[in-house]
Amino acid sequence: MRALRPVGDRITMEHGAGGGAMRALIEQIFADGLGDVASGGIGLAAMDDGAVLPVGDDRWLVITTDSHVIQPIFFPGGDIGRLSVSGTVNDLAMMGATEPLALTCATILEDGFRRDDLERIWRSIRATCGEAGTTVVTGDTKVMRHGELDGIVLNTTGIALTDRFVGDAGLRPGDRILVTGTVGDHGLAIMATRNELALETALCSDVGPINGLVRALLDAAGPGGVAAMKDPTRGGVSSALHEMAAKSKVGVVIDEQAVPLRDEVRAVGELLGIDPLLAANEGKAVLGVRPDVADAVLAAARAHPLGRDAAIIGVCVTERPGAVVLDTGFGRRLLGEATGELLPRIC
Amino acid sequence: MRALRPVGDRITMEHGAGGGAMRALIEQIFADGLGDVASGGIGLAAMDDGAVLPVGDDRWLVITTDSHVIQPIFFPGGDIGRLSVSGTVNDLAMMGATEPLALTCATILEDGFRRDDLERIWRSIRATCGEAGTTVVTGDTKVMRHGELDGIVLNTTGIALTDRFVGDAGLRPGDRILVTGTVGDHGLAIMATRNELALETALCSDVGPINGLVRALLDAAGPGGVAAMKDPTRGGVSSALHEMAAKSKVGVVIDEQAVPLRDEVRAVGELLGIDPLLAANEGKAVLGVRPDVADAVLAAARAHPLGRDAAIIGVCVTERPGAVVLDTGFGRRLLGEATGELLPRIC
Repeated sequence: MRALRPVGDRITMEHGAGGGAMRALIEQIFADGLGDVASGGIGLAAMDDGAVLPVGDDRWLVITTDSHVIQPIFFPGGDIGRLSVSGTVNDLAMMGATEPLALTCATILEDGFRRDDLERIWRSIRATCGEAGTTVVTGDTKVMRHGELDGIVLNTTGIALTDRFVGDAGLRPGDRILVTGTVGDHGLAIMATRNELALETALCSDVGPINGLVRALLDAAGPGGVAAMKDPTRGGVSSALHEMAAKSKVGVVIDEQAVPLRDEVRAVGELLGIDPLLAANEGKAVLGVRPDVADAVLAAARAHPLGRDAAIIGVCVTERPGAVVLDTGFGRRLLGEATGELLPRIC
Repeated sequence: MRALRPVGDRITMEHGAGGGAMRALIEQIFADGLGDVASGGIGLAAMDDGAVLPVGDDRWLVITTDSHVIQPIFFPGGDIGRLSVSGTVNDLAMMGATEPLALTCATILEDGFRRDDLERIWRSIRATCGEAGTTVVTGDTKVMRHGELDGIVLNTTGIALTDRFVGDAGLRPGDRILVTGTVGDHGLAIMATRNELALETALCSDVGPINGLVRALLDAAGPGGVAAMKDPTRGGVSSALHEMAAKSKVGVVIDEQAVPLRDEVRAVGELLGIDPLLAANEGKAVLGVRPDVADAVLAAARAHPLGRDAAIIGVCVTERPGAVVLDTGFGRRLLGEATGELLPRIC
């Protein structure tokens, strides 16, 4: 398995891109020396998107946190408020906690930020909470001087209780890889907006809470049927698969033809030189599913309004643990990970 | 009681200063239309520094969140890491939850931030967690381009379980106001540093976790003995008292001579024109205590290493509900609240 490069003397955009450089930063600086949580919980050392704390017999408290720095703050299909709530609700759902108990939301504003923009963002936060069946219970407000912060940054933290925890390290050879819908919609919509291509295309972010869909998939899979889950946000499906493969010590082979892709995403991706497999999604999940329940889970996904384009796109193998291989139909190549400045402030 | 001014068309520094403008922002935009939490919990609508969710018989899950934008990030007595952990641990303690279960820590960095500074901050985070008896269990990392963010911003969210919840709205006439130590140390230390007075003075921030001290005070007070608690951070003791008085619908009279104050804080406060009662503290608590247990709580505070300078500084009265009156020894005047640009990025 590839060793992570040491973090250099300075933080760079790459450390925020969701790939190997970010994992190196977390391992070498943030998680270093932090103990794992007591009595069987899962903490920062496990490098999942959230933590799991035991709270009684077969009951777990899941907690996850995200800061949101997206630019522009309003974009086709959503805004920073919807993104924040969805990102946190989906992170909880990825750990098997599909009923969020509560969210916190901390706001940092630049002096001079428009009141009506702030109201629009908070209306969106409330509406998205409604869709996900949760609410913001506490917050915090800071203001930085003009020029010290570009506009607005939100942090959302979510908590939930669950009795069916799912991690991101449970893949075994033979497990099928399922994606719940089209790939790269959010990332390409943002990049198209920044490049002023948005009006010419029908590109739209997929941002939204998918805890209801995930609940249906877990129900269909039955206990242990979903081996691992991850939401392919920054770094896209590729980074999600790299992380799942590395932690599970399996290889993953993806059938490129099977990856669901909107025509406009493919077109804008080619125009901008961005591989949709490396572009962010904000309303999708990648699942590793045991082979005997894969068809049932796929059927359940397609029966749900948010999973109509779901597809099985790959399989886990013994060979090349940690690697993600793309079968293009003409041959096989290693799928790379997002690096550097590819998509700054995408979420 | 004073009505809050409407938020104008633009956010200003005042909305981050911890006083009435910030409460107006929270009431008029953030909490507007958000329901309270289910089944007897306390959410954003209660405007406390955290939320309380019922989790079983007489057991509460407390959650609180804070973003930290302090500048400079290293200062006499602490740094942004120690501040983040202490701020969150202390917010939990103020609600009666003195055993933090876990913290999250989300980091936003400016491209080019120094690795060794980041390591120093995280060493401080770990050490402060150790003092408070907790750990960081999950996080998040974002990087913004050079010039989009001034250095580093941290968000910490904390959760804890408690069976003795304390709010900030329980004051009754006759209750005594107790402060656990000297006032204004953090705010004046930061302002002295910014004004390059730090080397000439012994000023030092009081930043640190005080959950152990608070536990001792709650034990000494017995059930219901502590009527309300608040940590006097942004806006200082004055804003904490204004908020407690307004929510409890009592007046508060403070005996200025009784307020514990370091000589150097007094001196630098006079030099810079900053009232220490309006300056931030990061290792202190303001308590409203029932009169029959006030002496016992004061004795318990003074017996604790972090409470040696504790004092009873005032009393709650029926007159002028929501007002904070300062008895100077020569006469009485209304104590103002922090406004505007007084202390930007103080925490």
